[in-house]
Amino acid sequence: MAQVNATVGDLAGNADKIVDWTRRAAQQGARIVVFPEMMLTGYPVEDLALRASFVEASIETVQRVAGRLAEEGLGGVAVVAGYLNRQAGLAPRTGLPAGAPLDAAALLWGGRVVITTAKHHLPNYGVFDEYRYFVPGNSLPVFRMPAGGTPGGDTRPEAVDVAIAICEDLWQQGGPVAVTRQAGAALLVVPNASPYERGKDDVRLALCQRCAGEAGAALAYSNLIGGQDELVFDGGSLLVAADGELLARGPQFEETLIVTDLDLPAATGPVRLAGEPVDAGDGTVITIRHVELEPVASPAAGGQIAPDTQVPFWPSLPDHEEVYRALVLGVRDYVRKNGFRSVILGLSGGIDSALTATIAADAVGPDNVYTVLMPSRYSSDHSIGDAEELVKRQGLHSVIVPIRSMVDAFEAELAPAGFPDTGLPAENLQARVRGVTLMGLSNAAGHLVLTTGNKSELAAGYSTLYGDSAGGYGPIKDVLKTLVWELARWRNAAATGQQDTDSLPDYQVLDALLDDYVEKDMGSAQLIAAGHDPDLVQRVIRLVDLAEYKRRQYPPGPKITSRNFGRDRRLPITNAWREGAVEPPPGVIAPGEP
Amino acid sequence: MAQVNATVGDLAGNADKIVDWTRRAAQQGARIVVFPEMMLTGYPVEDLALRASFVEASIETVQRVAGRLAEEGLGGVAVVAGYLNRQAGLAPRTGLPAGAPLDAAALLWGGRVVITTAKHHLPNYGVFDEYRYFVPGNSLPVFRMPAGGTPGGDTRPEAVDVAIAICEDLWQQGGPVAVTRQAGAALLVVPNASPYERGKDDVRLALCQRCAGEAGAALAYSNLIGGQDELVFDGGSLLVAADGELLARGPQFEETLIVTDLDLPAATGPVRLAGEPVDAGDGTVITIRHVELEPVASPAAGGQIAPDTQVPFWPSLPDHEEVYRALVLGVRDYVRKNGFRSVILGLSGGIDSALTATIAADAVGPDNVYTVLMPSRYSSDHSIGDAEELVKRQGLHSVIVPIRSMVDAFEAELAPAGFPDTGLPAENLQARVRGVTLMGLSNAAGHLVLTTGNKSELAAGYSTLYGDSAGGYGPIKDVLKTLVWELARWRNAAATGQQDTDSLPDYQVLDALLDDYVEKDMGSAQLIAAGHDPDLVQRVIRLVDLAEYKRRQYPPGPKITSRNFGRDRRLPITNAWREGAVEPPPGVIAPGEP
Repeated sequence: MAQVNATVGDLAGNADKIVDWTRRAAQQGARIVVFPEMMLTGYPVEDLALRASFVEASIETVQRVAGRLAEEGLGGVAVVAGYLNRQAGLAPRTGLPAGAPLDAAALLWGGRVVITTAKHHLPNYGVFDEYRYFVPGNSLPVFRMPAGGTPGGDTRPEAVDVAIAICEDLWQQGGPVAVTRQAGAALLVVPNASPYERGKDDVRLALCQRCAGEAGAALAYSNLIGGQDELVFDGGSLLVAADGELLARGPQFEETLIVTDLDLPAATGPVRLAGEPVDAGDGTVITIRHVELEPVASPAAGGQIAPDTQVPFWPSLPDHEEVYRALVLGVRDYVRKNGFRSVILGLSGGIDSALTATIAADAVGPDNVYTVLMPSRYSSDHSIGDAEELVKRQGLHSVIVPIRSMVDAFEAELAPAGFPDTGLPAENLQARVRGVTLMGLSNAAGHLVLTTGNKSELAAGYSTLYGDSAGGYGPIKDVLKTLVWELARWRNAAATGQQDTDSLPDYQVLDALLDDYVEKDMGSAQLIAAGHDPDLVQRVIRLVDLAEYKRRQYPPGPKITSRNFGRDRRLPITNAWREGAVEPPPGVIAPGEP
Repeated sequence: MAQVNATVGDLAGNADKIVDWTRRAAQQGARIVVFPEMMLTGYPVEDLALRASFVEASIETVQRVAGRLAEEGLGGVAVVAGYLNRQAGLAPRTGLPAGAPLDAAALLWGGRVVITTAKHHLPNYGVFDEYRYFVPGNSLPVFRMPAGGTPGGDTRPEAVDVAIAICEDLWQQGGPVAVTRQAGAALLVVPNASPYERGKDDVRLALCQRCAGEAGAALAYSNLIGGQDELVFDGGSLLVAADGELLARGPQFEETLIVTDLDLPAATGPVRLAGEPVDAGDGTVITIRHVELEPVASPAAGGQIAPDTQVPFWPSLPDHEEVYRALVLGVRDYVRKNGFRSVILGLSGGIDSALTATIAADAVGPDNVYTVLMPSRYSSDHSIGDAEELVKRQGLHSVIVPIRSMVDAFEAELAPAGFPDTGLPAENLQARVRGVTLMGLSNAAGHLVLTTGNKSELAAGYSTLYGDSAGGYGPIKDVLKTLVWELARWRNAAATGQQDTDSLPDYQVLDALLDDYVEKDMGSAQLIAAGHDPDLVQRVIRLVDLAEYKRRQYPPGPKITSRNFGRDRRLPITNAWREGAVEPPPGVIAPGEP
């Protein structure tokens, strides 16, 4: 299993990775290499799937990759890799995605694409929109790996049958997994692009064990790693035996090969080339297609797997380290894949910006992190001192830009136009002057601006549009405040002791309520029954519902929960549903207001 | 057909509308009243569909509405209205929307919900995400309206069979329309929430004519009106005979009743109550369910339809008037439904802000439109004069806020930190100072900030984040620049003659290219083959692709095309696919940069 970091849209770079990692795997003795889902295009490609020229480029590139592998003496290594294909023969009609794209996987062998198959179950929940992008596949391919004795030195005495399914095919009932036992495969290989959520690696293991049992086959689960906009793919590839025994587990958040020698039953049944339609157990029909691979010389392959190259078990990460590394990888890849090298952010002396700066330093190196202290007339010496201490400890760049003169200039010009000089608007004005300052410095030097808001604030709308919410990426936008503190303690960063609860309730109380309302989608009656204070329930529901517009304007950031504010929680902006709440005060945090 | 303006989430208000409009229709003699899709909840409800308490409230409310109608003496008027229901008996599983919601329609009769059905075909393309939200329905209900002679005075001598389908069921092959002929219905009534696109009313007419022919029944197409975030529902309800003859056509963008007396064949077949499963022609099975309605007294109904109350044909709108009215309705409803009463915008003296101000004045009245002139050291007397002339002609509020002192303050503080005082960053700084000014005035007075950018600029990324893109709603964000001019001419507003092509190519040339690239999704080879200049193709593709992040931060605005930047064109932000383009200059308009 090659769990590598593909980049969305970079067909040439991703093709090179397939060739490079296949070469390395073969040198370690691998005869089958499984890459992640949509390896060649990256995942998710969103509306690129509907663009004919992009689909065409994917199809041409996968064929060229097959040729390159053979030219390098790797034609006898079976390579399974995800790519974007199309379903031929479907006339355009309403409801069919344009061009009938397929979330496909190819088997490359002997210089050719010998098999192409496509994902049968299309996820269309949470962060997934796949009915928008793909038509479902309806086949289970089974290829027979020939016995060994190739020039590469492999000596395996018997042929083995291997089936291919893709990602969501494991998660839903029926389909390819349900018919694998009938197909008689000894191994089911599964390319995946399964995004990170806290603790999801354990869910995947249980899933793979159940599917291996159902399929009556060993199961190789090869998962993508890397950040793509809000999604972080964590790897953690898995290999389980037909009886559910865990045989290998890859690391999270790292590119790596997981190389293991598998003891599989030999292929015995007939090779039915014609295709065999069977009931898929989900109201559809799956066609089992067998392919017998001809032996092909692989002079560049290394033959036997050396026992000392096998490191099949990487340790599981503790909870806080897992979350922290997800955030670091999200930031690193967003910066790198968008062509930046450095970041800039404001330091307030508080815990949110301190944690964000530390994540950034771990992601791109402290020498690429530029911080700005922007004291106002209200800033305490204490908060400035805390920020300066952080800069020194982490080795970051820093500059001080006082904002008082800009704020004064605005107030002088706006007062005649009816702009008061105290209260909420003045606080927003300060936040916006800081936002303009950071963007100006970003313009001048080409740093990406990082936003430092946390999920609790984002939920309640406690941010200023174009002020503290300005920026290119929000590293902790999916991190509740209580988790911010836990991560800071875990990272052993200097906790500054600053209180910024302002007029929000205590974060322990608020986050427990947000967890039930946002993550679990409880209604007000359920929330009160669960023990939350009725007044707080009413107040928080109102805040959270009214903040939808502000959340949509917030920069993307790495997703770590099942209900992040981004791809997988979407409500109307214009929304009169105020369950159990008094009428909202118009305009306070309504759309377009700070 | 009652084509009314529902508000998302306002169950109480929408319920009142059902009762009110049924009363009016009955007074005009209607025996069947058809409301739009999801009338009771508004459309689209997005993730509210997945919230159990919201679904529960919808189900309880539709039952209460049935009771209220009977209490008002309207129990013998057959009312068909869309609402949110759930499919009972489905255990939670991966891939099933939480709670198994249904995009449902109820028949209210005699104080009860006599029939409930649900949309069979779920659209999941363009602006629609319905596999995320709903499970498909699988029945075709047919109700037999009893013969007349009720206390309301109706004298129709024979019973009539009426079937119900919902919106997308017309657009896709097979399903309810395909089995309506078998079911023997004389009339097919169809609640819709079909969003506006330029010229779509003609497409709908051809669709209804084809479906009426397939169903062998007259077809009543009742469509929603009103703005909901980016979507504008235009109404334009249609009634066609089984032979395709157009019998009635409602107005666009107005709430109204379309009342017509229909001459329909009498019901003759048996009433098969048990339900009859038939092949739906799309790989599924539809169950036809017949219901015979008991005669119910309707003392409040008016009996016969008076010939002089029938005004079945509203004129079709000319193209530019149609687009303009869509924009006005989008703005009016976004302002009103979000609890605002007034708007504020910056006037530059250019055509974009002039058109936006005029749309705003038509939407909320000139007395609710506040304009701000924000001259910099570079502003010409000419542009200030043009803006003042517009304010005078339209009767708007206006104030002048010079921005020079704020810009000077920023430059003085930022210069030591490496911020240059000329070039691109200085232009962005001015735009941001204007954005902060507008937001400050908005804070102080509670006006919604309108953004004035057009679709051509939005496509190419020619806007400044947190500057001219700041605001709550963007009235012309889906309007190409060439159409801005056409609309301005149509509205007979003062065209200012200002040139703002800046470094973009001529808008006639640019918009033709954007139309092929954005709307038609052509690749670079196709674009060049279509006659576009190869250098321009390369340059524009690069600009458009890099601007995805900025588009996501742009405020919502009314959709008028098939590929607006909002709900129905989504690409990854991090995207290495640069088809036919040279390497992008990093950072110029990359994510997070201005």
